[in-house]
Amino acid sequence: MHTFFLSQAIALATANVADGGGPFGALIVRDGKVIAASGNRVTARLDPTAHAEIMAIRAACQVLQDFQLTDCVLYSSCEPCPMCLGAIYWSRLREVYFACNRFDAAKAGFDDGFIYDEIPLAPEHRKIAMHGLNIADALSPFQAWYQLGDKTPY
Amino acid sequence: MHTFFLSQAIALATANVADGGGPFGALIVRDGKVIAASGNRVTARLDPTAHAEIMAIRAACQVLQDFQLTDCVLYSSCEPCPMCLGAIYWSRLREVYFACNRFDAAKAGFDDGFIYDEIPLAPEHRKIAMHGLNIADALSPFQAWYQLGDKTPY
Repeated sequence: MHTFFLSQAIALATANVADGGGPFGALIVRDGKVIAASGNRVTARLDPTAHAEIMAIRAACQVLQDFQLTDCVLYSSCEPCPMCLGAIYWSRLREVYFACNRFDAAKAGFDDGFIYDEIPLAPEHRKIAMHGLNIADALSPFQAWYQLGDKTPY
Repeated sequence: MHTFFLSQAIALATANVADGGGPFGALIVRDGKVIAASGNRVTARLDPTAHAEIMAIRAACQVLQDFQLTDCVLYSSCEPCPMCLGAIYWSRLREVYFACNRFDAAKAGFDDGFIYDEIPLAPEHRKIAMHGLNIADALSPFQAWYQLGDKTPY
């Protein structure tokens, strides 16, 4: 079954190249059924976050009308990058299967190794300069959140 | 100037709470002008990727009609999570400023520490089980990409 869905993700990735997208595809499966699927649409949509996994997660949430995917499985043609890993944790997917890995992707010109290297660094040591500044009311959004009565925790 | 834009991001985060969103806000600034802004819309949009930074990056790309933001600066009410860090690197932002940090966010119930801990692990050792499977045609999407003549590298 896992091989079957991964082959579908790979076929989708290949078809996506012909359709103006990048060579990546992902499916979200629930109870053995594909509920959402997408290729990488970064250049097609002018959206650097439109990786196949992110697109499939967003579409699956719309199908289920939920912001979590706790009983769903992600099948991706390639190992998810750190951005997509973040989305996988935030969406609380149950499991992930992938075909080729980050080293295969790097050989094909899609190298996310530098992002793996950057994330553990302190913000001030990263290649994109990141500065934490002291602002007097920095915590006020959290105070507003704490004081809000009727809210959806996430 | 940085304090001015961070205060705007914080005010946006607070307003976003009253508007059914999470306590986070982000702006994208180019040549000293705000070109896009958003609060966190995860629960409002049923989209686990709808963090303020991701939403602002996506909106800025639409404004500029580009999938990269090389001459733009991100101002966020809070230190970006690993997912948003990934998006920051993919969009090639020039610089990032934030007000409160990940530890302030954790104290308010928004803890991304577990994602920082998970990303460096080998896929098979992560809390969400991740399996790389050998599939015969796993590299065929990259071959299709390589053979494609007229394409937009990204």
